Amino acid sequence: MENLVDDCLFCKIIKGDVPSYTVFENDDVKAFLDISQVNPGHVLMIPKKHIVNLFDYTNEDAKKYLQYIPEIANAIKNAFPNVTGMNITTNNGEVAGQVVMHSHIHFIPRFEGDGLHLMTRNNADDYNEAKYTEVANKIKEQF
Amino acid sequence: MENLVDDCLFCKIIKGDVPSYTVFENDDVKAFLDISQVNPGHVLMIPKKHIVNLFDYTNEDAKKYLQYIPEIANAIKNAFPNVTGMNITTNNGEVAGQVVMHSHIHFIPRFEGDGLHLMTRNNADDYNEAKYTEVANKIKEQF
Repeated sequence: MENLVDDCLFCKIIKGDVPSYTVFENDDVKAFLDISQVNPGHVLMIPKKHIVNLFDYTNEDAKKYLQYIPEIANAIKNAFPNVTGMNITTNNGEVAGQVVMHSHIHFIPRFEGDGLHLMTRNNADDYNEAKYTEVANKIKEQF
Repeated sequence: MENLVDDCLFCKIIKGDVPSYTVFENDDVKAFLDISQVNPGHVLMIPKKHIVNLFDYTNEDAKKYLQYIPEIANAIKNAFPNVTGMNITTNNGEVAGQVVMHSHIHFIPRFEGDGLHLMTRNNADDYNEAKYTEVANKIKEQF
């Protein structure tokens, strides 16, 4: 448990000062139920280190903490016979819907007829080759 | 480039048989613009190996391919001055909205007033301690 901070809800959960419905835990990460249960089995996985969001992960952090995603996803899927898919998502930054400022991965199990709708829209009609190229080049220059 | 398959759109993009607006590429992954551009700078990252979705990743796959997420997220953020956050998401399985059956991570840059809404809802009123515990235990048993 590295670098935990006092006024962070998820650091308190890691320390055990706030209870949680834990489903998996090791030296690197903790996974527990999201209280909102968007669908039954909705889980959050957090690193046992205070990192605000994915923007602040090093390459080594990503390897260390994200390696458990498939194992947790499969455990949730196998726990519920009606679950045939899963949205695995992170909201990074307030504008993206991040509420607790300690990085967390959402695992939202999906089943037919659950009434959920993806955040999506198709803007392809507003783009042509020149505009796609301009957008791609802006990103490419950052590497 | 391991294990590519003939009838997969993203394998064709990896081989260069279908063009894409590439923003980053190395031996492990390729990142390119999503044609729908949910927001400007919307990128997909795919492994250079045909894996259907995160359920089929090994632990080693996760380390190898997911380690590039922070680097790509920061490049996109830094490319656009108005971008202050990002949803990084994967849709695994048709029921979860997966259309191309080759694993891909969405990077959706976010800015104030972009009109997008998260897939969320609060079902906490339907749960009590016994129900949360029952759900958590079902998952815990799978590890």
